[in-house]
Amino acid sequence: MAAPPSMLWLLLLALLVLGVRGEAEREALISERRDACNRLSNRGIHPRDPSQFPNRFRSHGGTLQYASPADANMTDLDCAGVALLREIIRPYSLSRPRYSNAPHLLYVERGSGLLGIVTPGCPTTFRNPFATPSCPHREEDRRRRRRRPYDYESESERESEYEYEEEEEDEHETRQRRQQQEQEQGQEKEGDTCQKVRRVKEGDLVVIFAGNTFWLDNDNPSQELRLVAIVDVSNNQNQLDRRYKTFLVSGEARLESEEGGEEGGVSRGVLQGFSNDVLQRALDIGNTTILRHIERRVSQQRQQGQGLHIRLHRGQLDIPHPRQRRGEESQQYYEPEYEEEEEEDEYKEEEEEYPCERRGRRRGSGNGVAEEGSCSMRLRQSLNRADNADIYVRGAGRVNLANALKMPALQVVGLAADYVKLERRGAMFAPSFVVNAHRIMYVTRGRGRIQIVDDKGRRVFSGEVRQGQFLLIPQNFAAVKEATAQIFEWVAFLTDGRPLREQLVGRNSLIQSMPRQVVAATCGIRGNEAEQLIGSRQQTVGPILTPPSSYYYSRSSSSSRTYPEDLDSTTESQTTETETKTEAETETEAEAQTETQPVTAVLTASA
Amino acid sequence: MAAPPSMLWLLLLALLVLGVRGEAEREALISERRDACNRLSNRGIHPRDPSQFPNRFRSHGGTLQYASPADANMTDLDCAGVALLREIIRPYSLSRPRYSNAPHLLYVERGSGLLGIVTPGCPTTFRNPFATPSCPHREEDRRRRRRRPYDYESESERESEYEYEEEEEDEHETRQRRQQQEQEQGQEKEGDTCQKVRRVKEGDLVVIFAGNTFWLDNDNPSQELRLVAIVDVSNNQNQLDRRYKTFLVSGEARLESEEGGEEGGVSRGVLQGFSNDVLQRALDIGNTTILRHIERRVSQQRQQGQGLHIRLHRGQLDIPHPRQRRGEESQQYYEPEYEEEEEEDEYKEEEEEYPCERRGRRRGSGNGVAEEGSCSMRLRQSLNRADNADIYVRGAGRVNLANALKMPALQVVGLAADYVKLERRGAMFAPSFVVNAHRIMYVTRGRGRIQIVDDKGRRVFSGEVRQGQFLLIPQNFAAVKEATAQIFEWVAFLTDGRPLREQLVGRNSLIQSMPRQVVAATCGIRGNEAEQLIGSRQQTVGPILTPPSSYYYSRSSSSSRTYPEDLDSTTESQTTETETKTEAETETEAEAQTETQPVTAVLTASA
Amino acid sequence: MAAPPSMLWLLLLALLVLGVRGEAEREALISERRDACNRLSNRGIHPRDPSQFPNRFRSHGGTLQYASPADANMTDLDCAGVALLREIIRPYSLSRPRYSNAPHLLYVERGSGLLGIVTPGCPTTFRNPFATPSCPHREEDRRRRRRRPYDYESESERESEYEYEEEEEDEHETRQRRQQQEQEQGQEKEGDTCQKVRRVKEGDLVVIFAGNTFWLDNDNPSQELRLVAIVDVSNNQNQLDRRYKTFLVSGEARLESEEGGEEGGVSRGVLQGFSNDVLQRALDIGNTTILRHIERRVSQQRQQGQGLHIRLHRGQLDIPHPRQRRGEESQQYYEPEYEEEEEEDEYKEEEEEYPCERRGRRRGSGNGVAEEGSCSMRLRQSLNRADNADIYVRGAGRVNLANALKMPALQVVGLAADYVKLERRGAMFAPSFVVNAHRIMYVTRGRGRIQIVDDKGRRVFSGEVRQGQFLLIPQNFAAVKEATAQIFEWVAFLTDGRPLREQLVGRNSLIQSMPRQVVAATCGIRGNEAEQLIGSRQQTVGPILTPPSSYYYSRSSSSSRTYPEDLDSTTESQTTETETKTEAETETEAEAQTETQPVTAVLTASA
Repeated sequence: MAAPPSMLWLLLLALLVLGVRGEAEREALISERRDACNRLSNRGIHPRDPSQFPNRFRSHGGTLQYASPADANMTDLDCAGVALLREIIRPYSLSRPRYSNAPHLLYVERGSGLLGIVTPGCPTTFRNPFATPSCPHREEDRRRRRRRPYDYESESERESEYEYEEEEEDEHETRQRRQQQEQEQGQEKEGDTCQKVRRVKEGDLVVIFAGNTFWLDNDNPSQELRLVAIVDVSNNQNQLDRRYKTFLVSGEARLESEEGGEEGGVSRGVLQGFSNDVLQRALDIGNTTILRHIERRVSQQRQQGQGLHIRLHRGQLDIPHPRQRRGEESQQYYEPEYEEEEEEDEYKEEEEEYPCERRGRRRGSGNGVAEEGSCSMRLRQSLNRADNADIYVRGAGRVNLANALKMPALQVVGLAADYVKLERRGAMFAPSFVVNAHRIMYVTRGRGRIQIVDDKGRRVFSGEVRQGQFLLIPQNFAAVKEATAQIFEWVAFLTDGRPLREQLVGRNSLIQSMPRQVVAATCGIRGNEAEQLIGSRQQTVGPILTPPSSYYYSRSSSSSRTYPEDLDSTTESQTTETETKTEAETETEAEAQTETQPVTAVLTASA
Repeated sequence: MAAPPSMLWLLLLALLVLGVRGEAEREALISERRDACNRLSNRGIHPRDPSQFPNRFRSHGGTLQYASPADANMTDLDCAGVALLREIIRPYSLSRPRYSNAPHLLYVERGSGLLGIVTPGCPTTFRNPFATPSCPHREEDRRRRRRRPYDYESESERESEYEYEEEEEDEHETRQRRQQQEQEQGQEKEGDTCQKVRRVKEGDLVVIFAGNTFWLDNDNPSQELRLVAIVDVSNNQNQLDRRYKTFLVSGEARLESEEGGEEGGVSRGVLQGFSNDVLQRALDIGNTTILRHIERRVSQQRQQGQGLHIRLHRGQLDIPHPRQRRGEESQQYYEPEYEEEEEEDEYKEEEEEYPCERRGRRRGSGNGVAEEGSCSMRLRQSLNRADNADIYVRGAGRVNLANALKMPALQVVGLAADYVKLERRGAMFAPSFVVNAHRIMYVTRGRGRIQIVDDKGRRVFSGEVRQGQFLLIPQNFAAVKEATAQIFEWVAFLTDGRPLREQLVGRNSLIQSMPRQVVAATCGIRGNEAEQLIGSRQQTVGPILTPPSSYYYSRSSSSSRTYPEDLDSTTESQTTETETKTEAETETEAEAQTETQPVTAVLTASA
Repeated sequence: MAAPPSMLWLLLLALLVLGVRGEAEREALISERRDACNRLSNRGIHPRDPSQFPNRFRSHGGTLQYASPADANMTDLDCAGVALLREIIRPYSLSRPRYSNAPHLLYVERGSGLLGIVTPGCPTTFRNPFATPSCPHREEDRRRRRRRPYDYESESERESEYEYEEEEEDEHETRQRRQQQEQEQGQEKEGDTCQKVRRVKEGDLVVIFAGNTFWLDNDNPSQELRLVAIVDVSNNQNQLDRRYKTFLVSGEARLESEEGGEEGGVSRGVLQGFSNDVLQRALDIGNTTILRHIERRVSQQRQQGQGLHIRLHRGQLDIPHPRQRRGEESQQYYEPEYEEEEEEDEYKEEEEEYPCERRGRRRGSGNGVAEEGSCSMRLRQSLNRADNADIYVRGAGRVNLANALKMPALQVVGLAADYVKLERRGAMFAPSFVVNAHRIMYVTRGRGRIQIVDDKGRRVFSGEVRQGQFLLIPQNFAAVKEATAQIFEWVAFLTDGRPLREQLVGRNSLIQSMPRQVVAATCGIRGNEAEQLIGSRQQTVGPILTPPSSYYYSRSSSSSRTYPEDLDSTTESQTTETETKTEAETETEAEAQTETQPVTAVLTASA
């Protein structure tokens, strides 16, 4: 009977221990809350594959996967304060209109499509080309539509649709009559109008402000539209939550969440969130047929496997947007016409802004806060165009920059992006660190070796990343990148609108900016050694480094022939990259002769 | 004896479980810290009655109640990052000078009074009208004061006051002599001067910056002065604490805190916080009589039930402030004269700024940082004036906006406010969401039905709110409001200086800004149905919707007669609302004839 | 056998209790996370001695000690959101180049030295005076260096250095030849160039942006260079961590951390963090000799006791920096020449910016974001010069201000600083509070009495602080300071670029800005008493108060004779303060005659 008393002691001891632990834990928690980057540094950084993101919208029409800082084991996102997402939209599919609590910085990885962004209070400057301003177009539209009675994939629905065709007719006629009256009274009825629709294609960078609704339509019959993005949940524009929250306007989508992801479940459109009687009064429609119809169809859609993305039965939607004036349909997605806009940004973009009503004014927007100017803000920019490079080194690669100085929308959200392409195995992106921002890389093609060094000089990452992976390089952490394949191409999202990079080697680098004797003293070497260190890579301005002269492969052999294992990663971009490729190859050959003294060309960044 | 060993296991198991739970809890905590809005969404949103706020200053002169984000069960405030307060000042009472760690956005719900705001480094531009610049006024003042020897409620104190009248006389005489000397030496002595005093009245919006001292005097003999405010504790101006902290300049007040509120206790003025000897040296006064006097009186005041608000025995204080030149004393509080100022804001306000010394310069402020310009910043604006409405729909209601474009002070604090009045049962504020801000409503009159929808389409609130209730609508959450009484009037505080609202229905709404086929596809309906959806409420610009044509009550009967249950809520505002009321009734009748085609008038918002 | 069942109950009870406690703790934690200032107020504020800071870099060359908000028991730093540091650099020692995740606001407490700040993308405008533009200087340099073969303290290393002298020669020659070729090709080779080097001396304020590398060289043979700084870890520029993180460029340093400090350990330079083969390719150097050399020397340095600070064997480094044109070497550190610059800031500073290449352009910086303008931003300013005072009261003291209006760099980081010198025992800094910022004082000389009052009127600190102590005065907390020695001098760091101070007494103070009757009512006193309160210290503009006329020591006796106990604290500043001292004494005597009517002179602050 000695045991029970001893167990009482044990129990008390346990309570005591737990109590004490509670205290200690408390202190720990207080400090732990702001040191995600510190924990990250201790645990090491790892590349992330979007297919492993814990939250997923998946349906016939496509997939959206994302990871939020609030998700478990997302220390890197917690450190950077951003959510990452990848969206794949299948051919002839629509990504439902949605908005979010935080701004997106979006990059089109592959494919092409139409993007609509709705900014509150801005005018509906796009009009259906079939509609004329004086506008008996609705009749015409209606006739056309009888020929193609529905626009989405659900053939089983055909009868049910016609079964209430009749009951609407009365309503229809009254509306028609009223419309005529209005027209007679001089109130011009508008056609199928909408806010600006943008064509986006591979290599485009898009800024979407928090709370702005957007939709994406992959009108390409054969190619997926793939996008990656960061969602800056720690942005000033987001006052709601550190999670990434998606608000659908209408419809339903099911969010699957793995353990540790955000709580999943069905998300319904905000319109469906209101009760039908309230909506009916708000819309001022006589009966609730449409609303009941929407309700029924939305749940049917879900049963048919439609989710965030809707597979369109008919194929292309009839969306008003500027089309190319010449050329074949099949090449529309890589048309140089849209490219041109970039070069004459200032006036071209503005011109395109109001194609049908040039002097369009905001027609009585409710709150009067949206300024006219912000309605024509450029939200899209091509980031990967070769002729727009900011830094270019023949035989090594190029960098295209997008920052607040180039694109005012980036000033608004305080984000920036780089596109970097190393065009040759062994080419490097110089050891450097970003002074004022985190850098989130996404590898779009090829692969490379990366080393990241933290504040204590520990190598928190050293390894290879390959196409389709995200990697965070925290603020101030030094990193070096080196192409291990014939191509290594990535886009980097930065969490400041005017990021500053400090290079560790090369011309105008950190080492070169310090007196020689200071370098000597801190490195523990003699002055002439310091001089050698400082004098290295003198020919290189900017971060793109040519493969070193001592590189292990022979200089004379054309590098494009030597690495057959890289071909698989480059072949899929053959069609789009042909031009650049040829150029690169030509360069490589040219360079073989002038290897000892490469010619560098640098375009000033603040164009 | 088998039990003890098994219990040992049980104990170990328990420890293990607790340990594991501790870990899990830890992870939970890390993520929990930034998801107040998420928790709010899961638990639902509820209106808040200020009388239930956990922290309360209560005394003879009035009441101040507030709730801070740090208080228990204030998930909504935690989400919005603001504290809410309501202050009631009884007739002839003074709210003691105080300052706070965060900016206030204050709305005068009822009554009228004087408001003094002290901005560091700004000139004392107000002077007692009894004082002349050459100023033998202090003598005059003193004589007047002998006739009314004290200004506050404590008749028992009369003797004690005179008992030290004599001992001061010496000191007094020396001071008087010195003053005379100074005057002879050309140093002009100032009268009773102070910084700008503003008259505030029902419907006024006031911005008070963090750290600026303010006091309120209800000089109305018969009516309470009632204010509501948000205190933006997550503002940049606040580096101190997420709590709402009140610093009294002098005096004492007792904070009662219910369980879960901030820790209560007696708050003393910062002047009382210093030791008497230090204060004596700082003031450079010969003896500590005044200081001891203050000390004694302050504690006596408390015993007499004076707290944050002081009941003034004599009634009106003699405060220098601009008065109306004509009219009776009794109507001074709703005088149209002050209203006029709004219309000619630019020059009128400026003119009023320096009534006695027009070219007044800051006289040697200590730190030289306060700019001259910021001293004349407009901090008050009438928000509810009918003739200043930004959106007006006859027979439905109106909206008055105050944002950074109208009132630069709102730019400084990054806050805004709306005043909305639905003037008819069934009138609606369109389904909409605010893109970049939280919206905190306070219902000033009547009642209405509100639905709020979150990111998953869940109705997180659906119910009626009535006069005197606060309700949070988080950023991006869609909401619709509908008058269920003959009047539904509220003021909404927004947590961004330039809030953007997106409407879901009506002209220029979100649905209208998308191509028809996109709407059709996402709602699962046919194109002509989408057209009907898009075409609804075409006549409505802005968020004010007239009661729908299908509304259940007869159009021909004048609506003001049909709802006797609303009278109680409207009667108390009879006196002040007479004008508007009549107007509204006239409208209702006029509207009965033109119901099918309401005429809308919208004033541009960015006046 | 009754015990075991009861123990089961006990166990369940325990679990229950723990569970409940867990819940309560959880709530507590949620609120605790943002109330460091509140906890601070409850526990009281204490001065901090830098020698007790828990984190320490210590080596032959000097010491750096700091405390971070994340450290245990640093509630005050947690409240203010800044780290504090003190650095002592011994004569002829170098503080290694390093950068940090947050901006520094640095004050030179004693001594003099050279400071190099490297801003990304800015030109290397400083050139070795021995080098000529056409530049056979490297040869010359090299010859000079043969005469002094190493620049740091490690005589044992001499042989090992020469042992690889030969193997480098080849490499050397090829380089030399290449250089010649380059010169022949018209590519002008630069001398020993570096970015701007600034001389800093006692009383200088320096702003260092986050991520900007800086180094300090104490080139004074006899005096320590002592600096104190705040590191604003809650600054916008810091996205990384609430800890203060130090990134060395090269070399090694050991961080000692007391219990509760940051985790210590060896910090290595980021250059050492990369693997040698990667670095070799990045530098494009033929062999890894230098790299291996650096590696070996860095670890040897550590064994020799070199750390963050390197003791230089040879003494002075040969660093290009502007020198005085006349005068002796020994007085160079207090040369008035550098002082002059302050008076003609606008053009003098700019002129100095580009001594060798006036029209220097940024030569192809990589990212193009650094603007030309920001490269010439003034980062240093003398804060303690008597002739630059913003507020000066004879016989009391003076205040020098540095804020965003004077120094744009302070606008960038949102910080400011004050220098205050009370020149007489009993002189006071008026009771006041800062409206929008925390104030972190560091006492540079003498001692004084301080009282701090919180929002509830509690005296959270009341005591004496002395030379070498930090003290936090949180935002809105009222404080009064009084010299208890013949001198009381401090520098105050403020956490806003445009801090606003509100004085409680004196001319233009808070009390004077309120109507007399409001003051009377809130203090519980009669109008004439209020008048007396308001009328006190009428002669005083600004926060510097002369010792009160009632002060306990005789006015006629020269104060400099009466306090022998202060001599020890003032003697050490004898050499530098001689001039001021004499001036002060003269004043004191002059003042003895005019005590009743002191003349005050105030310079406007926004120069």
